[in-house]
Amino acid sequence: MARIIDGTAIAREIRAEVAAQVAQLRAEGTVPGLAVVLVGGDPASEVYVRSKTRACQEAGMHSRLLQLPETATREELFGTIDGLNADPDIHGVLVQLPLPPQLNAKEFLERVSPAKDVDGFHPNNVGRAFVGDPQGFVPATPAGIMELLRRERIDTHAQHAVIVGRSLIVSKPLASLLMAPGANSTVTLTHRHTVDLAQYTRMADILVVAVGKPGLITAEMVKPGATVIDVGVTRVDDPSNPRGYVIRGDVDFEAVAEKAGAITPVPGGVGPMTIAMLLRNTITAAQRVHDRASRKAKAGAR
Amino acid sequence: MARIIDGTAIAREIRAEVAAQVAQLRAEGTVPGLAVVLVGGDPASEVYVRSKTRACQEAGMHSRLLQLPETATREELFGTIDGLNADPDIHGVLVQLPLPPQLNAKEFLERVSPAKDVDGFHPNNVGRAFVGDPQGFVPATPAGIMELLRRERIDTHAQHAVIVGRSLIVSKPLASLLMAPGANSTVTLTHRHTVDLAQYTRMADILVVAVGKPGLITAEMVKPGATVIDVGVTRVDDPSNPRGYVIRGDVDFEAVAEKAGAITPVPGGVGPMTIAMLLRNTITAAQRVHDRASRKAKAGAR
Repeated sequence: MARIIDGTAIAREIRAEVAAQVAQLRAEGTVPGLAVVLVGGDPASEVYVRSKTRACQEAGMHSRLLQLPETATREELFGTIDGLNADPDIHGVLVQLPLPPQLNAKEFLERVSPAKDVDGFHPNNVGRAFVGDPQGFVPATPAGIMELLRRERIDTHAQHAVIVGRSLIVSKPLASLLMAPGANSTVTLTHRHTVDLAQYTRMADILVVAVGKPGLITAEMVKPGATVIDVGVTRVDDPSNPRGYVIRGDVDFEAVAEKAGAITPVPGGVGPMTIAMLLRNTITAAQRVHDRASRKAKAGAR
Repeated sequence: MARIIDGTAIAREIRAEVAAQVAQLRAEGTVPGLAVVLVGGDPASEVYVRSKTRACQEAGMHSRLLQLPETATREELFGTIDGLNADPDIHGVLVQLPLPPQLNAKEFLERVSPAKDVDGFHPNNVGRAFVGDPQGFVPATPAGIMELLRRERIDTHAQHAVIVGRSLIVSKPLASLLMAPGANSTVTLTHRHTVDLAQYTRMADILVVAVGKPGLITAEMVKPGATVIDVGVTRVDDPSNPRGYVIRGDVDFEAVAEKAGAITPVPGGVGPMTIAMLLRNTITAAQRVHDRASRKAKAGAR
């Protein structure tokens, strides 16, 4: 039976570390601040946004929610972002996706100052993450997966990591992180056009699935002892559940857990790590500003 | 016996297309210009730089070589790059690597304006290439490999591409291009830490080798009928040759050519494509500036 990787507990650990770092920064005069921009009233987005701002507050950070109407114009959203870019109290800026159809996400993700882009979506940060430059911000989900592997002491060196799905915000940056010097995995990236998916998944020492198709990965597709990371989050109708639905990952959890060496559950695996890593990116951004100001102050005092 | 992919002929084709586009732009008043910055007198760098500037001139472009002494300071090189960034006659700017030890390449690659960075090394362009944004510049070698496959009508869709080596300027961007929507390959990236390399190479429909180890890939490691792209370039001593050396790729060419479906020779395969794609990036940069100016002129005339 596989070890169950407790993402909730690991995320709690990271959030406690972040809170300690926040306390230290506050003591030295910097209150780390995150701003989230929400356009329109998509209910799922509102839930995400609230859990982000709540997590900030719990960690002792300052958070600000800016709500624009569904009908907001390009100029209004640019204005909001520019204001946050210029605001010294704000260290991280998120634009919650999806945006209403009149607004082209790409333009706004590129408008956020790279130094405050804690989502890691600006081309500058995408490029830095790709080349392994630590000045960049790595998107929260792939960063969270790497952190799970690290804290669970799952060695990536010379292992074959197989990723199912090729999304720009999870799979591709994760492939880049896993193959980089230091991590040293052999990496295979598969997707909807891959012929005979099982041929690849059965080779995986580390199998990461980020597709959004419940039950895609069955026990026959997994190598005995493999580490299985399930990034899928799909609502499946379930009248027996008080909410009327349950959340399912991409992996047939019960069957695969009997064969794998370690596995993340859904929910409670990768999900909680995402917000924890977002907080960590924000505190990194704040720490950089703080350190730069301290160096300047010291130089001025000399 | 494999079809030999004639990179020299394909590169000539591309250069002729570029020359036609240059003639068109000149007729409309824009002379595309490339500037190459060379610091110090490394003989190999001098050879590369001259072949780049010569290729520009042959295509009807303007080219400028800026030579700085081996002892150039950070400020001097910044000043040179800033001058070229501001110069309206220059559309592409290259900083030839390697730089002398007192200069940190990363700083200077980031100083080149992303709009003139025809090498595709600025984080902004790396990020754009990674997400498939056509506004970015893709580094010449991976772009050249994709173009070879396209012009040789080698289908990448649902094929398994295996890349040996994980360099930032060839392998990683190539992996990104091959897995992107449109290309749709399943991609495996292997490197020095990969266990049982042959296990992967034997699965490859398209095998790309970019390591710099002559003879690394033997016939036993190749699937019958596969396409083999050899990016390796190594000087091997050979007293029987008038120059005293020969250039070897990473593939045991004679033996693999009997098994593969198509193969690039070394020299004469990927190599000639690199300069052709650099010219194409430069003309793209010039065309963008030209189109923007034309739009402005039209708007002004109204």
